[in-house]
Amino acid sequence: MSITHIEHIGIAVENMKEAIAYYEKVLGLACYKIEEVADQKVRTAFFQVGQTKVELLETTDPEGPIGKFIAKRGPGIHHLAFAVEDVAESLKSAEEQGVQLIDARPRKGAEGLNIGFLHPKSTFGVLTEFCGKR
Amino acid sequence: MSITHIEHIGIAVENMKEAIAYYEKVLGLACYKIEEVADQKVRTAFFQVGQTKVELLETTDPEGPIGKFIAKRGPGIHHLAFAVEDVAESLKSAEEQGVQLIDARPRKGAEGLNIGFLHPKSTFGVLTEFCGKR
Repeated sequence: MSITHIEHIGIAVENMKEAIAYYEKVLGLACYKIEEVADQKVRTAFFQVGQTKVELLETTDPEGPIGKFIAKRGPGIHHLAFAVEDVAESLKSAEEQGVQLIDARPRKGAEGLNIGFLHPKSTFGVLTEFCGKR
Repeated sequence: MSITHIEHIGIAVENMKEAIAYYEKVLGLACYKIEEVADQKVRTAFFQVGQTKVELLETTDPEGPIGKFIAKRGPGIHHLAFAVEDVAESLKSAEEQGVQLIDARPRKGAEGLNIGFLHPKSTFGVLTEFCGKR
């Protein structure tokens, strides 16, 4: 496992347009891309903040994971993504140490990166993602 | 407002010792400091991940903010802290744009930095902190 930095922080929002206006006008950050990830039933908006991206997530379907998250807990921080060199190797390493995986192997996420999630039951309540080019 | 990077991510944990073991053994991060912040009724453990710190927060009092957070929502990501040059100026700027503040002016947080919180009602559910030397 070789984590280099925090790749992004995923934030569930109810209204993408209003949330983008807050991040741009109040915090002075620039939204550089809006991308739909059909697989996850979300629309995403990205802001670069130093090494890390803030990724706003708006559901495109009430039954999608972000729709369910907001119905249960309200809008707010959804997950934390660590940049790793090799997602498959990192998932395997975590599993070998007893961590329950959501993704047994990498799949494609936003921005064409490989991603894989660890289950929050195994990570002290933090939905944790590995994210990388490999 | 001039945000340079994400200063830290605050994560509420129930058992600091077990959580540190996970971040060290599974994720391969090194805890470089444990510090008690009496004012906030928390014990904090820090991990540097690129530009950003992961800050684990364990309550020292069930009635403290982290104790109440865990009682209500369980352990997990608690807040997001942006590094700014001038905390007082950033709080003032946010307030002028209609954001409800928790801290009208900066106070001292962990690591001797000035800190100030914005109310999650005004920030789309994200408890947001400004953090800086000034």
